[in-house]
Amino acid sequence: MLPEPVMQKIQKEWLDYQGMGVSVIEISHRAKEFVAILEEAQALFRELTGLPANYRILFIHGGARMQFSALPLNLAGRKPGKKCLYFETGNFAKLASKDAKDLCNVEIAASSAETNYDRIPEYDPAIFTDDVSYVHITGNNTIYGTRWNEFPETGDIPLIADMTSEILSRKIDYSKFGVVYAGMQKNLGPSGMAMVIIREDLLGDAAKETPVLLNYTQADADNSLTNTTNTFAVYTTKLVLEWLKEQGGVEAMEKLNEQKSAKLYDVIDASDYYRGVAHPEHRSIMNVSFNLPSEELEAKFLKEAGAVGLYALKGHRNVGGIRASIYNPMPMAGIDKLAAFMQEFEKNN
Amino acid sequence: MLPEPVMQKIQKEWLDYQGMGVSVIEISHRAKEFVAILEEAQALFRELTGLPANYRILFIHGGARMQFSALPLNLAGRKPGKKCLYFETGNFAKLASKDAKDLCNVEIAASSAETNYDRIPEYDPAIFTDDVSYVHITGNNTIYGTRWNEFPETGDIPLIADMTSEILSRKIDYSKFGVVYAGMQKNLGPSGMAMVIIREDLLGDAAKETPVLLNYTQADADNSLTNTTNTFAVYTTKLVLEWLKEQGGVEAMEKLNEQKSAKLYDVIDASDYYRGVAHPEHRSIMNVSFNLPSEELEAKFLKEAGAVGLYALKGHRNVGGIRASIYNPMPMAGIDKLAAFMQEFEKNN
Repeated sequence: MLPEPVMQKIQKEWLDYQGMGVSVIEISHRAKEFVAILEEAQALFRELTGLPANYRILFIHGGARMQFSALPLNLAGRKPGKKCLYFETGNFAKLASKDAKDLCNVEIAASSAETNYDRIPEYDPAIFTDDVSYVHITGNNTIYGTRWNEFPETGDIPLIADMTSEILSRKIDYSKFGVVYAGMQKNLGPSGMAMVIIREDLLGDAAKETPVLLNYTQADADNSLTNTTNTFAVYTTKLVLEWLKEQGGVEAMEKLNEQKSAKLYDVIDASDYYRGVAHPEHRSIMNVSFNLPSEELEAKFLKEAGAVGLYALKGHRNVGGIRASIYNPMPMAGIDKLAAFMQEFEKNN
Repeated sequence: MLPEPVMQKIQKEWLDYQGMGVSVIEISHRAKEFVAILEEAQALFRELTGLPANYRILFIHGGARMQFSALPLNLAGRKPGKKCLYFETGNFAKLASKDAKDLCNVEIAASSAETNYDRIPEYDPAIFTDDVSYVHITGNNTIYGTRWNEFPETGDIPLIADMTSEILSRKIDYSKFGVVYAGMQKNLGPSGMAMVIIREDLLGDAAKETPVLLNYTQADADNSLTNTTNTFAVYTTKLVLEWLKEQGGVEAMEKLNEQKSAKLYDVIDASDYYRGVAHPEHRSIMNVSFNLPSEELEAKFLKEAGAVGLYALKGHRNVGGIRASIYNPMPMAGIDKLAAFMQEFEKNN
């Protein structure tokens, strides 16, 4: 889901971008008009996040999952043993370590698999030893509706975070991270591309078998224009960032997301009927996952919700139940409607 | 440049795809509506090209250049020595071999560098020895305006062709190839993705360090939906294929492209003023590159052409001069206008 004003703007200027007589997707990625779009997107992201000057912003083809391979290819070689620590906090966290395992020596730092990923697991900081190339976490776990509230303190070891489902949804101190990356399709733009934020001293360690277009050093040298980039994704992201700024920026968005999620958690907490999936201490403000007393009632809930225009609420098959995804573009009105529907449904069923 | 009717259709259904109340770029890549788009694009491509049943159609992130790395990762391991032959016929052909050289043992089959890539080079078929994993060619060379008219006969060795700038512009016997691939942004759709057509017996040889999303076997197993695909690119490609079918298909398009390019080559051949870059035997029907008597006249030509609405004619910096790109969506009227302008300019200068 993208913000309505952004979608309208794309439609309006679709056939004629700024009087050029052609669509924005028809201009060359090397045209000054497109380079201006890309650089404005970078500048806006920097402004909205307060990103320190020693971090670069790259646009890489393929979404977050392509980064699951790109990360070990670029960074595992920092230490001779190529030991990389992964926190297993959900489906995507597991996939990240799985995709990496032929490219580095994956070790699981900690896992909450035993409690079906209902929380961020505890861990012993002694695992952050000098021979570790990096530590990987998934900031927000979409399926289970959990998130890291306090990030691990990894000292000199670069901390890497997949923030696909929460980028720009809350204020983050980027200086705590070596790399933050995000597939664009949740809070940034359309699918098919990732934004990679990397501390500049981590460039230069790519393995020689790294595909050219996945090499961060190359991408940085070419300002993400090594080849024809996904111009539509970069353009849309720029519009989303402009919209976010108009909404008051990340701080305003975080406040709104907290209010939005609180409305749903309040309904859950006030009821014995709904059971939240995530442990209250690790609740996400982007995804609210919960169950009803039975699978039959869950099916009925989904059906009746759909009938009143509340879609995309089906939980992932790994956890079942209901999941409300409340990314930045989701307006408060949608949340109010869902909260009211939940209370009404409980009364009647 | 995309066909005008396609661009208008995208604009029209932008905010509401088939009554779903959301944009096509907002629906899940796993939704049945999106899977239908992807499968229809595949079926249309198959129908328009007469693709044999033992070939698969994959959508892979990153454009043609990502394939420069993916090809050796997937196919070089077919033979123990990982020897791969590359024909050096231009800029992209050279880049393909350069990007491959850390991933396989690149050998240059033949090169026309000495004559500044004005032709497809001659070669000795004895180079196609049993220990070669594959032979790579670039079907059409955009900068120099050359193309392969007769493809090399490589026997049991898979022939791989980058057809980015000529896919669907002429009838091709796909059974002669192991893999045909194309970045989408010339004749297929928007930038950021490639279509990869692969003979099914060539699946299964990927090196273990192949990123999951570049592994052809994985892409085939998941019907190109291993992760969130570039939904906008797949959707647009489907619309372009529908448009192409309405135009009479590949045969009609080839005839039109021959007529379009002939009009420009006729002006060049009837004049001592314009000098074609490509050797007449290897002329492209997609890109017509030529020079004027001096660089000053070329600069004047470009300026005056722009003043009457003839844009994007500047030759690549490697060859200079003028280049007219006449991809499928370029209408005959644009060619007529350019041919008339060329004759007029010659008279006056």
